[in-house]
Amino acid sequence: PARGVGQCVALCNANGAGYHSESKAKEYKHVCKRACQRAVDQLKAGALAVEAVAAALVELEDSPFTNAGMGSNLNLSGEIECDASIMDGKSLHFGAVGAISGIKNPVLVANRLLSEAQKGKLSAGRIPPCFLVGRGAHDWAVSHGIPPCPSEKMATKFSLSAYKRNKRKMELAEKMDTGQNQTKKRRQSSENENGSGCLDTVGAVVVDLEGNVAAAVSSGGLAMKHPGRVGQAAHYGCGCWAENACNMNPYSTAVSTSGSPFLTSEDRVLGGVIVLRCCRCVEAQPSQNIQGILVEFLWSHTTESMCVGYMSAQDSKAKTHISRLPPGTVPGQSLAIEGGVCRLMGVVE
Amino acid sequence: PARGVGQCVALCNANGAGYHSESKAKEYKHVCKRACQRAVDQLKAGALAVEAVAAALVELEDSPFTNAGMGSNLNLSGEIECDASIMDGKSLHFGAVGAISGIKNPVLVANRLLSEAQKGKLSAGRIPPCFLVGRGAHDWAVSHGIPPCPSEKMATKFSLSAYKRNKRKMELAEKMDTGQNQTKKRRQSSENENGSGCLDTVGAVVVDLEGNVAAAVSSGGLAMKHPGRVGQAAHYGCGCWAENACNMNPYSTAVSTSGSPFLTSEDRVLGGVIVLRCCRCVEAQPSQNIQGILVEFLWSHTTESMCVGYMSAQDSKAKTHISRLPPGTVPGQSLAIEGGVCRLMGVVE
Repeated sequence: PARGVGQCVALCNANGAGYHSESKAKEYKHVCKRACQRAVDQLKAGALAVEAVAAALVELEDSPFTNAGMGSNLNLSGEIECDASIMDGKSLHFGAVGAISGIKNPVLVANRLLSEAQKGKLSAGRIPPCFLVGRGAHDWAVSHGIPPCPSEKMATKFSLSAYKRNKRKMELAEKMDTGQNQTKKRRQSSENENGSGCLDTVGAVVVDLEGNVAAAVSSGGLAMKHPGRVGQAAHYGCGCWAENACNMNPYSTAVSTSGSPFLTSEDRVLGGVIVLRCCRCVEAQPSQNIQGILVEFLWSHTTESMCVGYMSAQDSKAKTHISRLPPGTVPGQSLAIEGGVCRLMGVVE
Repeated sequence: PARGVGQCVALCNANGAGYHSESKAKEYKHVCKRACQRAVDQLKAGALAVEAVAAALVELEDSPFTNAGMGSNLNLSGEIECDASIMDGKSLHFGAVGAISGIKNPVLVANRLLSEAQKGKLSAGRIPPCFLVGRGAHDWAVSHGIPPCPSEKMATKFSLSAYKRNKRKMELAEKMDTGQNQTKKRRQSSENENGSGCLDTVGAVVVDLEGNVAAAVSSGGLAMKHPGRVGQAAHYGCGCWAENACNMNPYSTAVSTSGSPFLTSEDRVLGGVIVLRCCRCVEAQPSQNIQGILVEFLWSHTTESMCVGYMSAQDSKAKTHISRLPPGTVPGQSLAIEGGVCRLMGVVE
């Protein structure tokens, strides 16, 4: 196995107008930096990409400023229900949880589902689950040693006050919708109010020096969503994807997305994506046990801003950046795209 | 709108060896026939494809012989939790429920989610849900006028005795797995036992004479699954797909699948698919208000057998057929593929 070198890109994404204000921007940069550092620490300790990406997500979930894990949006009943998924490019295994409550780090349940599935079948030839939701997901997690976390510990002052504000806004809007022509009224309701506060789904993509890639995503979902609502972060092929290079394809690819691609009828699509693609360098000298990987990474978003951090094991600390749409452009109708390239060299034992 | 002519293909699919025995085959054919008839009745009454496909699914779910709705597999706790999804090729809207209990026809909840989403945003600009799971899905259904159904009414003599048999098998297997080397033992557990009894996910694809297509799928999931487990029938882009022709593409396509495509590491992939593809006939004479649609349909499966029914509004009754793998072939390693073509002519008002 390879040692000591790896690449990590971690992302935060928000559509709330002004939400990545200068004061919030600092917090987002900090959490992205810590997430990258956690992943790289894991890689340096010999972890595979999938373990490193899970470690990055834990850091992102634990921040009270992101809409994932701690500090997630509250639903219509004032509860937190989270979605998360993770994919391992080596095995193509996938693990996901949807609408899970009372667990501090939903990505750890998704990751545990993935690793349990890799152990093979259950007793009597039963196929292990890769996607669990609701109460069943919570109970599975607890029975697999993941401690429950009281919901009230996961709410923050900010999420509680946003809930109260949204609740008032809803009651007001419904009072104005008096009876008769509700459907028509519903269509007319302002496109600009999002009712949501923030969409700060978090995600990360990682490559280790063996060239294995992994991706993960985690989200508290829309504010004031109906209980039981599951968003794209839990969907196979939607929230994240990772696929190692193979005979047919020299590139390994990992992708993590946020936003609402389901809303095909919407005139604005708000979302963001981080992508990592890599292949072996032609200059590598396998005879000298030196391996090189060329890594391309990019981020793109239609939201007003997106916070991104990235770091390789060769760097002493993570770089962070708030990408913003150019002034005068309209979120959902314009696109920002940026990226970089780096080359990793490592010793294979 | 067009009137009086439409096409429907309905499917049942089972991997249980001998499960489509001659005696069972008769029941399957009957239910597929009734499902086609229901869809065509709807089309004749002026319904759109998406309403017709939901009607076909209700018939398939109501049969105690299929693993969907009534008669679904029981999970590890002896409860029924169903998955279903539906997609409208005209609007590209999608509705799905996962791990829903206590609702006789899960497809009607999925369909209601789809039609509610078409009405536009909720109060205060909230985006309506398209995928609900567990308790939240059940409560949403009931609050939208879909009556709850006591779980014990959805279990059948067959599903209860299968549960007891599977429970005994599991306990026996776990007794043999004494402590020490569980992981290794798990890997070795027989590939041939499926622990499941049946995978009879049901689905249907429909085209109406306006050329709108729709697809739907419904499943009780694997027997003895963990509570909260959601299968492909509820997954966007996995269980079903429908997409009307557009400027870029002259074909409308509807697909409904069953099986376990997630199991990329499995050496056998058990599944089935029905596909409907159609385009306007070149011979059509729009000046005389006569429209023609050329419809191609096919079914394919790697399971031992698959029951399929199909009917157009021009037919007096549905044709049904049990497709089987050729003798001597191995389920999961061989593929059967069959299909047909028909042309529909109708008067456009």
